[in-house]
Amino acid sequence: MSAPDPFDLILFGATGDLAMRKLLPALFLRDRAGQLPAEGRIIATGRTPQSRDEFLERIHTRFSEHRRIAKLEPEEWQRFSSRIDFVPVDAEDPDSFVALGKTLNNGSPTATAKRTRVFYLAVAPGHFVPLCEQLNQAGLVTPNARVVLEKPLGQNLASAQEISERIGAIFAEDAIYRIDHYLGKEAVQNLIALRFGNMLFEPLWRRDWIKDVQITVAEQIGVDGRAAFYDRTGALRDMVQNHLLQLLCIIAMEPPTSIEADAVRDEKLKVLRALRPLEGQQALRHTVRGQYRAGAIEGKPVVGYQDEEGVAPSSQTETFLALRAEVANWRWAGVPFYLRTGKRLQERSAEIVINFHDVPHSIFHVTYGAGHPNRLVIRLQPDEGVRLHLMAKTPGDRMRLRPVSLNLDFSETFRDAQEDAYERLLMDVLRGRLTLFMRRDELYAAWQWIDPIIAAWEEAGDAPKPYTAGTWGPAASSALLGRDDASWQEES
Amino acid sequence: MSAPDPFDLILFGATGDLAMRKLLPALFLRDRAGQLPAEGRIIATGRTPQSRDEFLERIHTRFSEHRRIAKLEPEEWQRFSSRIDFVPVDAEDPDSFVALGKTLNNGSPTATAKRTRVFYLAVAPGHFVPLCEQLNQAGLVTPNARVVLEKPLGQNLASAQEISERIGAIFAEDAIYRIDHYLGKEAVQNLIALRFGNMLFEPLWRRDWIKDVQITVAEQIGVDGRAAFYDRTGALRDMVQNHLLQLLCIIAMEPPTSIEADAVRDEKLKVLRALRPLEGQQALRHTVRGQYRAGAIEGKPVVGYQDEEGVAPSSQTETFLALRAEVANWRWAGVPFYLRTGKRLQERSAEIVINFHDVPHSIFHVTYGAGHPNRLVIRLQPDEGVRLHLMAKTPGDRMRLRPVSLNLDFSETFRDAQEDAYERLLMDVLRGRLTLFMRRDELYAAWQWIDPIIAAWEEAGDAPKPYTAGTWGPAASSALLGRDDASWQEES
Repeated sequence: MSAPDPFDLILFGATGDLAMRKLLPALFLRDRAGQLPAEGRIIATGRTPQSRDEFLERIHTRFSEHRRIAKLEPEEWQRFSSRIDFVPVDAEDPDSFVALGKTLNNGSPTATAKRTRVFYLAVAPGHFVPLCEQLNQAGLVTPNARVVLEKPLGQNLASAQEISERIGAIFAEDAIYRIDHYLGKEAVQNLIALRFGNMLFEPLWRRDWIKDVQITVAEQIGVDGRAAFYDRTGALRDMVQNHLLQLLCIIAMEPPTSIEADAVRDEKLKVLRALRPLEGQQALRHTVRGQYRAGAIEGKPVVGYQDEEGVAPSSQTETFLALRAEVANWRWAGVPFYLRTGKRLQERSAEIVINFHDVPHSIFHVTYGAGHPNRLVIRLQPDEGVRLHLMAKTPGDRMRLRPVSLNLDFSETFRDAQEDAYERLLMDVLRGRLTLFMRRDELYAAWQWIDPIIAAWEEAGDAPKPYTAGTWGPAASSALLGRDDASWQEES
Repeated sequence: MSAPDPFDLILFGATGDLAMRKLLPALFLRDRAGQLPAEGRIIATGRTPQSRDEFLERIHTRFSEHRRIAKLEPEEWQRFSSRIDFVPVDAEDPDSFVALGKTLNNGSPTATAKRTRVFYLAVAPGHFVPLCEQLNQAGLVTPNARVVLEKPLGQNLASAQEISERIGAIFAEDAIYRIDHYLGKEAVQNLIALRFGNMLFEPLWRRDWIKDVQITVAEQIGVDGRAAFYDRTGALRDMVQNHLLQLLCIIAMEPPTSIEADAVRDEKLKVLRALRPLEGQQALRHTVRGQYRAGAIEGKPVVGYQDEEGVAPSSQTETFLALRAEVANWRWAGVPFYLRTGKRLQERSAEIVINFHDVPHSIFHVTYGAGHPNRLVIRLQPDEGVRLHLMAKTPGDRMRLRPVSLNLDFSETFRDAQEDAYERLLMDVLRGRLTLFMRRDELYAAWQWIDPIIAAWEEAGDAPKPYTAGTWGPAASSALLGRDDASWQEES
């Protein structure tokens, strides 16, 4: 397949963690794979003034520690680094945007304006609007310009609307790429392929055959350097509003008419709008907030959330959230979608488990592993994969069943061949493919469902339940499922 | 699992091909696996007088050439051979049954009568009734006696009824084991386990999702030493009436209430009775008879059927048959079941292919292997296995599908661990498990469906279409499916 058109990618926050750990390696790896056009430039920006050489030196160091880049050949480093410029930019300083424009235009504004221009805002969300407005005032938003926004987009519906409207005044909706890297994961892509590329799954994909859906995104890390931000955000806004709801949409959506962006996004939107509202008592009943106390992660003691630097000692922010959602439509009515996410949990693991009903009646005498109904597991972290759990006959002359599992992603060398989600998503931005990016109305619909939950907590003064760091969260999380006679699938 | 009760297995036709190639090795292998009780005796009989030592010598020679027995340890040969006696028996000679009785009773008729007594009739079908009547007259049919009958049971409904009634006057129905070794195959057992041990398959197992079912039993051999028998039998009676229809039943039956014999046989019977009759013009339209001409099998020239020794030069017997059946019930209405079998075909292969409908609409731009709808393949010969063919995503940053196949039998070491169907079925006989054996009413129902087909051929003077040995049969076989816009799945 051909490389994308010539581009200028302007990376804000280029010295930050995301850029260094994910974005620049992703661009390099696509370059190594021959997928970047010769005329593809990367203009890195950051607030701290530094020379291009200093910046390249930083990247080089980080690359040499990168697992997938491993051995860096001189000629590939040469090719990649020659794409890169560094321009110090300060959102408060209009002059710095003039300097950025000079580098960008490279003496020939007309020619460069024809190129794909991508502004990637890998910066704190508070900078989105000021940066876009400065870019606009400096005349840098060409008709071919696109902007990539990282989460979170707002703290509630009202602020999401404000950000969207101000950015929307500068960029057309189809030039705005709201990135959610969970959707870029190979396993999620494979789920879409399996679901809609085969006749076998779609008939089963409904309330008649599916007992429940469980989506877990568990982290072992605490708040790291994000304490101030996290403490006014919490797990619901930080993770559920975007990542977990997006995954829920991919599972629950009706078959789109095509894989085109708006066809898929229309279907996801319908799911978000079909979420049964959790308001007042319903919100309190179907959500479990938690906050970690001191404990141990992989044998090492860690402090409690309230003792983290930058967190108020009396903070009531949730670092864990479990909730029971329902999609109120013909396909899903009555099927619980259990979502949970948290920090300082026992494992770093992200997975979607689709539990099918058990057989209504067993015709066999001996079933090893009775109580092992079929389930499909889409694993996103730490490794990616899709597995189907079945019962099969134990070889031999008796009819005995045993649980077995099938690898459905079919790449023996998956771990090596695997692209990072950011590689896929960056290429999508360069190629102008919006399918895996959230549309504005999706963003609003997600907040519309989230806001009443927060309001209910605030009204009731709901305090998060403590859990020991290194566990699977508060006991109430299990009890939430216990009410439905269900339990979290925790083995992998 | 415990060994069966003490038994005496009286093997008629012990010097014949089936006994030497399948039955005695199967008994030996179960003995090696520790599954035969210490008090298990095998009384071999044959028309040709020979000493026990001579007979043992023959077995020993055959065993040493047997792929799965391979190395024969002296102590296991000692244990197995000590179970064996040889008694010459001639169905025409009542005295020989008295001699058999003496060996059987071993001086203690009361004690031996309590043991499980199995008469295995590995002889030409014409001997079934005379042998049973002689056994009865000699007083050898004890309350614990069972009889095992090999196909074919009759040449039409009337003769099947006559044989059944005469044998039924001597043995109770639940003491009659009509063996069909296709049902004993591991892959068929696995199909049953997958279908009824999982929630995933049963909802798909119907007209809504299945486009057609194809059952092929292809042989490379010709008529071998069976010319006289085969020439008055033909492929329909020799293969379809029993093996292919039994496989069809396993695929098409409703979930039985249990794996118990009568629960399963009731469901199979319902399928046989639901077969849409093929009478008159319908029979001619939906069947294709063929007869092989000279050709080549794996590069070696072979003669045509009419030139085989023992076959009349003007024989109109079919050595190939393809037919299109329908199961007229709510589950299967309108779904074609294509059956075909023949001699001197291109490959030795037996398999069931379940073709699912294609997706009603493709949402993807690029699908490698478009026109690769899902299918489940149950392979019975030459190797056994169950595979599911799916579309999955090609790893990488584009959404491209490719056909892949999944092994559903889950035994890495399947080829080695594999038991022969006769091992399973012999153990079932010794343990008194009738599930895999055909009941009398099934036998009748099968003939009831077969008889009008033969009548239609005879009435129309239908001549078999010639096909070259080493091909897949006459072109009309493909045309039969072509009418439905279908084709035989021939790759494996």
